[in-house]
Amino acid sequence: MDATMTGEDKAPRTERGRRTLRALLDAARAEFGEKGFHDSSVVSITSRAGVALGSFYTYFDSKESLFRALVKDMSGQVRDYVAPVLPGDGDQIDAEGRALSAFLSFARQHKEIYRIIDEAEFVAPDAWQAHYGTTVDRIFERLKAAEARGEIAGPVDEAHAWAIMGMNVFLGLRYGVLGEERAVGEITDVVNAMLRDGLTKR
Amino acid sequence: MDATMTGEDKAPRTERGRRTLRALLDAARAEFGEKGFHDSSVVSITSRAGVALGSFYTYFDSKESLFRALVKDMSGQVRDYVAPVLPGDGDQIDAEGRALSAFLSFARQHKEIYRIIDEAEFVAPDAWQAHYGTTVDRIFERLKAAEARGEIAGPVDEAHAWAIMGMNVFLGLRYGVLGEERAVGEITDVVNAMLRDGLTKR
Repeated sequence: MDATMTGEDKAPRTERGRRTLRALLDAARAEFGEKGFHDSSVVSITSRAGVALGSFYTYFDSKESLFRALVKDMSGQVRDYVAPVLPGDGDQIDAEGRALSAFLSFARQHKEIYRIIDEAEFVAPDAWQAHYGTTVDRIFERLKAAEARGEIAGPVDEAHAWAIMGMNVFLGLRYGVLGEERAVGEITDVVNAMLRDGLTKR
Repeated sequence: MDATMTGEDKAPRTERGRRTLRALLDAARAEFGEKGFHDSSVVSITSRAGVALGSFYTYFDSKESLFRALVKDMSGQVRDYVAPVLPGDGDQIDAEGRALSAFLSFARQHKEIYRIIDEAEFVAPDAWQAHYGTTVDRIFERLKAAEARGEIAGPVDEAHAWAIMGMNVFLGLRYGVLGEERAVGEITDVVNAMLRDGLTKR
């Protein structure tokens, strides 16, 4: 065994174990992203990862449990990619613009995220709901904090957070995955101006 | 045969044929919505529809072609449900608010639409892209017309339309499918105020 496991989630305790787990998740991202869940196989994923088939079961019970872990992992990667750009100049609306820019860049570099998260609705609905649930909670908390600081008009509502998440998801689909013909900054400027001042002609 | 068919799309020419086709599409919506594509069967769908199995193949080549037709049909139903509320008092932002209200009501009455459209990404990607492509085109055309009438600030950008579509899709998921605890009008008021004036504190 590569590592001593801790309880249900089989989290590795050694550096070597963590590297093996990372290799399996990266191989799973490539395999599920290319072939989808049903046409992917554990044998092929372990082969991509350079990990023995027997070792796989040290980490995961099944292809389903690997897929579920991958969704959680990718959700965390998005969060970790966006988090560092949130602090910075300007107000929270500027920060939301930076978050969108970072997300579009992430989607361009990881186009497979859409296929994987979208397929999770069917293959791992709990992980799918957790991804959107934690994402919307983060946006909602940021907006409430900005309202408390007097940076945006209240009352902030959960529906604002769902609206912003939906915008970002579809902009990432269109300008991250489906086509890269326009600069990320151009898209962000257009959408962020709408978020700041609305569409009203002044 | 129930009807004389016309070319590739097998569109029925008789009233009886149209009723049979409608019964198949409605049964397909219920079956695919409950069980998903893979666990649904043509036999079960024809049985729900009260249509002979042999007749099915008068209309569709396969379960896949029925699914594709269903996505197109549901996409058209959304369009037809929303279209009548677009003309009315106020400006285009008011109209977009009415469109969102209508869409949320539609989603509450047809919760299966999410599972079906979302699964189309994998089962019928052409129909999935066509659904979002035509939806975003309609929003973009409405915004450009409103800009020409001087109702909203320009320049209107395709990204505005993708942002609004994304907002509406996720609001429909949250307040149409996942929970109905809040009034449609309350959600629409919150989101439409953001679309009108942005989040800036004035």
